[in-house]
Amino acid sequence: MLTSTQLKSNPSLFVFLPLFYTVWSDAVLTPSEIATIEGLIESQQWLSADEKTFLRSQVNPASPPSPDDLLSWKEEIKKAADQTTGKSLVDIGFQLVRNHGTISPQLLKEQGVLTNIEATLGFISHEAAYNFQSGKRESVTQQLTTQQTFDIGALEKILDGENAAIIKKVKTILDDPEFRYIDSGNLEIYRAKVLQWAQLLAAQGFGSIAYPKSCGGQDDMAAYFAIMETLSYHDLSLVVKFGVQFGLWGMSVYFLGTEKHHKKYLKDIGTLDLPGCFAMTEIHHGSNVKGVETTATYNHTTKTITVNTPHKNARKEFIGNAALHGHMATVFAKLIVEGKDYGVCAVIVPLRDKKGNTLSGITIEDCGRKMGLNGVDNGKIEFKNVVVPLENLLDRYTQITAEGKFSSPIASDNRRFFTMLGTLVGGRIGIPRAGLSASKSGLAIAIKYGDQRKQFGPEGAPEVPILNYRTHQRRLMPYLANVYALHFSLQYLTHRFLNRKEEEMQEIEALAAGLKSFTTWNATATLQECRECCGGKGYMSENRIDALKNDSDIFTTFEGDNTVLMQLVAKSRLTEFKHEFAHMNLFGILNYVADQAKTKITELNPIVIRNTDEDHLLDPQFHLDAFRYRERNILTSAAKRLKRHIDEGMDSFDAFNVSQHHLVQVGFAYIERIVLEKFIDQIQNTADKNCQAILKKLCALFALNQIDKNKGWYLEQGYLEGVKTKAIRKLLNQLCWDVRQEAVPLVNAFAIPDSLLAAPIATVK
Amino acid sequence: MLTSTQLKSNPSLFVFLPLFYTVWSDAVLTPSEIATIEGLIESQQWLSADEKTFLRSQVNPASPPSPDDLLSWKEEIKKAADQTTGKSLVDIGFQLVRNHGTISPQLLKEQGVLTNIEATLGFISHEAAYNFQSGKRESVTQQLTTQQTFDIGALEKILDGENAAIIKKVKTILDDPEFRYIDSGNLEIYRAKVLQWAQLLAAQGFGSIAYPKSCGGQDDMAAYFAIMETLSYHDLSLVVKFGVQFGLWGMSVYFLGTEKHHKKYLKDIGTLDLPGCFAMTEIHHGSNVKGVETTATYNHTTKTITVNTPHKNARKEFIGNAALHGHMATVFAKLIVEGKDYGVCAVIVPLRDKKGNTLSGITIEDCGRKMGLNGVDNGKIEFKNVVVPLENLLDRYTQITAEGKFSSPIASDNRRFFTMLGTLVGGRIGIPRAGLSASKSGLAIAIKYGDQRKQFGPEGAPEVPILNYRTHQRRLMPYLANVYALHFSLQYLTHRFLNRKEEEMQEIEALAAGLKSFTTWNATATLQECRECCGGKGYMSENRIDALKNDSDIFTTFEGDNTVLMQLVAKSRLTEFKHEFAHMNLFGILNYVADQAKTKITELNPIVIRNTDEDHLLDPQFHLDAFRYRERNILTSAAKRLKRHIDEGMDSFDAFNVSQHHLVQVGFAYIERIVLEKFIDQIQNTADKNCQAILKKLCALFALNQIDKNKGWYLEQGYLEGVKTKAIRKLLNQLCWDVRQEAVPLVNAFAIPDSLLAAPIATVK
Repeated sequence: MLTSTQLKSNPSLFVFLPLFYTVWSDAVLTPSEIATIEGLIESQQWLSADEKTFLRSQVNPASPPSPDDLLSWKEEIKKAADQTTGKSLVDIGFQLVRNHGTISPQLLKEQGVLTNIEATLGFISHEAAYNFQSGKRESVTQQLTTQQTFDIGALEKILDGENAAIIKKVKTILDDPEFRYIDSGNLEIYRAKVLQWAQLLAAQGFGSIAYPKSCGGQDDMAAYFAIMETLSYHDLSLVVKFGVQFGLWGMSVYFLGTEKHHKKYLKDIGTLDLPGCFAMTEIHHGSNVKGVETTATYNHTTKTITVNTPHKNARKEFIGNAALHGHMATVFAKLIVEGKDYGVCAVIVPLRDKKGNTLSGITIEDCGRKMGLNGVDNGKIEFKNVVVPLENLLDRYTQITAEGKFSSPIASDNRRFFTMLGTLVGGRIGIPRAGLSASKSGLAIAIKYGDQRKQFGPEGAPEVPILNYRTHQRRLMPYLANVYALHFSLQYLTHRFLNRKEEEMQEIEALAAGLKSFTTWNATATLQECRECCGGKGYMSENRIDALKNDSDIFTTFEGDNTVLMQLVAKSRLTEFKHEFAHMNLFGILNYVADQAKTKITELNPIVIRNTDEDHLLDPQFHLDAFRYRERNILTSAAKRLKRHIDEGMDSFDAFNVSQHHLVQVGFAYIERIVLEKFIDQIQNTADKNCQAILKKLCALFALNQIDKNKGWYLEQGYLEGVKTKAIRKLLNQLCWDVRQEAVPLVNAFAIPDSLLAAPIATVK
Repeated sequence: MLTSTQLKSNPSLFVFLPLFYTVWSDAVLTPSEIATIEGLIESQQWLSADEKTFLRSQVNPASPPSPDDLLSWKEEIKKAADQTTGKSLVDIGFQLVRNHGTISPQLLKEQGVLTNIEATLGFISHEAAYNFQSGKRESVTQQLTTQQTFDIGALEKILDGENAAIIKKVKTILDDPEFRYIDSGNLEIYRAKVLQWAQLLAAQGFGSIAYPKSCGGQDDMAAYFAIMETLSYHDLSLVVKFGVQFGLWGMSVYFLGTEKHHKKYLKDIGTLDLPGCFAMTEIHHGSNVKGVETTATYNHTTKTITVNTPHKNARKEFIGNAALHGHMATVFAKLIVEGKDYGVCAVIVPLRDKKGNTLSGITIEDCGRKMGLNGVDNGKIEFKNVVVPLENLLDRYTQITAEGKFSSPIASDNRRFFTMLGTLVGGRIGIPRAGLSASKSGLAIAIKYGDQRKQFGPEGAPEVPILNYRTHQRRLMPYLANVYALHFSLQYLTHRFLNRKEEEMQEIEALAAGLKSFTTWNATATLQECRECCGGKGYMSENRIDALKNDSDIFTTFEGDNTVLMQLVAKSRLTEFKHEFAHMNLFGILNYVADQAKTKITELNPIVIRNTDEDHLLDPQFHLDAFRYRERNILTSAAKRLKRHIDEGMDSFDAFNVSQHHLVQVGFAYIERIVLEKFIDQIQNTADKNCQAILKKLCALFALNQIDKNKGWYLEQGYLEGVKTKAIRKLLNQLCWDVRQEAVPLVNAFAIPDSLLAAPIATVK
């Protein structure tokens, strides 16, 4: 075209060049686009018939320009684009004409028509020039960068709290080259390495830290939890190995045994000289552990207990430390005395001699490769009439008298069993705290990568960090808010547990069960999202999301299956209701109904349910009201539903089953309300104003994200109207955009040592 | 108590025994429970002062009964419970009195009071006896079992369709002991095994089946997809190895090359004598592949092309077959001719000699261990000025003339590149079909396990299969419905692709991108749920959910990142709109507005939005209307939103970014509507009435589950009211309950050979 005689004789034809170039270089030249352009050409009265024919020939799909034509057109247009301040194709076209001659008055009259055509073809006039200029485009998306409005060290201090010293110590130890990660492919090498790591930690006194001082410990349970949490920035196999040895095995001896057991075993357990197992789960009884079938039969003549596996499916399964390293085990079994079954007891059974040879009567099978945690040697254990002395019975709750009779401070088998389990609730604190650390590691990796990784960008401008994309922010920022929220709740749970009173145990157990479920499910979801957000890089084991996800995946199952636990939480909540309903006299019922009605009046205020003011939507009081309303409403409706079914004669087991989905929601609503309350408490207690400000943002993000997730429910109830849920969604996106700017400092406040984070993609370049 | 003088002298006191036993054996004896019972005792005028003192002493927390007391109480109560038809504690109490004497008239008068106390304490009167009887309780939950209303073979036939023969052949081959799974821990052994498996498949002619007959193939692309899908019941590393070799490497030569390349290479590729790679992705350019920086510079003097990696981050990355086995690669690079950049071309570059030694100028680094697919040898490739002859240029779309000039049938770089990618869209059909098979395997394992695995149960009755629990059903049944739904959509997509016309390509590409995203995300979610639903067993590698999940996890990333693809789908949908809006004259706009208004009138009918009739809720027309309304509404609002932003002067890149979340929903709404339509089509075309009936149920489950998921949106729009979304939730639970009964036959219809499913927990005992 450029060399055509027509252009030379009438430079005004240059006005079409940007248009022609753009339609050819665009995806497809459709018939209607051709028709539009042909119509335009036809309508231009200043063109001669020859010129029209020539111009039409330039948009004929049967004879497209050559690639070289297009390249030279582009060069020509670029020159003109740089010379004009106009941004539209027509502006550039006019400049081209000027570069080759002068603009005829007839052409000038057509400017409006040409501009219309440009719009009709769907081009954005104020951006056309970007295709031919470079470095001039400055979109908001590409300009967004990391900011920092708070002191990272100050926030780290808030997170670490009273445990700062032990956390620092653990990090220092783990930073040692001895703790460098190894490939997880070879089970033998990996398991040996994890054992060695655990021994190094024991040598630091970490293993026994929660045990009594008389047994080599420091009586510091708070430190134990902080160690578990900090170790979880490292290999999670090590964490679980550590937890099996010092938590499950050691604590079962500590809490279910008495002084004689403490003296005999705890010191060696704490130093890892006596590796052991916690043998509760059986093949046929996992969640329903009360149904274990292994027997522990007392023989008064010999004052011994015979431990036996009655059939293959009563073998102990998934037992950590069993396949290779455990020398002893706390075995949970039905205690039989004089032919009578006294329910589940715990008894210490030796598995291997000092050389590691399996003892007679014991058969152990390796569970083999697992989805994760392959540094832990899980196994199945079978007992064939293994005889142990009576003193091996952990006798805090189950005793045999000198006369050979069963005795217990708790008469009911049921209550005794759940009391025993209750003493072990610490596991349901350690595991979520470990899962939280894994989530923090995953987010630190994905966020640091997303802040640096650039992909795509506006035409004519550099590529953009992927964390500047709204979907990427929506995928990661709410999880960042969640880990902050959960951090403070788990601190609260730990505090409640450490300062527990007997009468608070039911509440603390429900809290632990619920937070364990919420946090570990959140970990699974977070790490899955991190994997996907890091694309192929997230799939490479070297970047650690692989191990973080797969190692922590079982956290939703062990220490209690999450779905089962959430139902326990719900039942615990309903217990309160059972009393409330049952003991209510007329006056009480009237009060109750009035209270419910008051809620309706104050909270379902027609102005409030439609209130879309940003101040209101960001107000923690609105969040608390919404969370509490949901909790109370779901709990009440579940109670009523159950009562209705049972009143109608439905079997209560069926009634609970029909309502199961509802009950799980009761558990969630309760936990979410607690998490929000504790986050708000934390903010109120934060003196540093800058830290307080960012925590406030995170808290609003957490709260609004939950409300958005549950918006179907809120709309169903009429608690929110569509106009408000839409405003919430918009604000949520805005909060993600705001938090993204501080996302890197926020993950830096976790202060995960580089040697532990280790992912090459998380390294700042 | 039983031996007390009081009981002996007044057997009527036995009436309290069941109550006392129950409060002691129950979880905790609360102060208010004690107060209630003490009040009851006090109110009984037939009791003497001594008797009252005695009875009160039995509920004193300071002196609980011994475990032996409780055991003997229970024995006593059991006897009575078996002798009465009454179910309440009072009924049993009366029977106990009868067993030891006669019921006094005074006691008889108190029956009502006693029953009230029982209720006040929160016991369910009609169930109390179950605690003391065994085998009499028959809850609905425990009675639910697997049914079968259709012929499994008939359904299998419907699923396999025209590909039944090749599917059968592939299954037969895979059933051979040679294909037994091996441990994935050792990369070297595993990769060698996968290569050997691929060679065995090639020997069967599976590798070349899609290639022209002249090149040793059978010109049967349909069979190729069926093979991929069936292989995916086996090890997914093998599937990907197979896909890299015969799909990516082979098809790039086939579709981007011309006859000379076909003749020279395809036969050896099909037999795996010439293993190769598809080297497109670079470290810095994954999703944005158009930005690859590797150069292919043409030298006319020598008629050669020099391939070069300009910097470390332009290395080819994640390239399958690269680390060990590939001898050649199709390399995507910017073609430079006479100093000018003509955009991306594809050129064949040898990597290794026949002995497997890396050639000069080539540096390959092993990507090492990955989250999954460890049987595939991914690597990074760097080229240092590697010279290849001009004939290695795959020249269907990019040619060099005899004069050394660049030439192409497609002038625009952009269009040429996307045309080239378009020819490779088959990968976006093979991957979702593979992901679907992985989902089917996971569901087959989890459902067969859930049907057999028993845990918990009503008091006094056997434990219940976990698949009888409502939450378990809600977790798995919708995914079962999804795989059936997606099966038919993917059949449809394949059919469209095999019978494609040039002008349909844009639509088919959008369809493939969307279904690939939807199906692979669904696979990730399905397999995660299957893992959790199988508890600890799901974590053991022997049960295969581990590998299924981890191997398929990358499916959401490769062949196009799902989030990016869903935005492409949305943009493709908006293109239609762009034309609609742009070319609309006044008449057109009026029509459009009228059409929108009509929708409002017919679909937002106030009766319909509140209609909770089951017939209506199950009506496919309701489902279709809802899906279509959502699709149109989201698309329209996204278009308007973008237009508003751009009209207001926002940079279009920012406008798209602000709307990104919305755009992803456009993609989902489109794909979901297609999936539903194709499922309904399939049902209409199913002649077998029994199969039709079960497919109808699955389709309703799929549709209502999606509506329930999106209920927040529907409520926001006013398309559904709360009363209707609640009815949908209830019906959804009912459908899960119904489908659960046929769940095992439904997964059996996938006809996955036992040797491939292989999970011990899925074996019928």
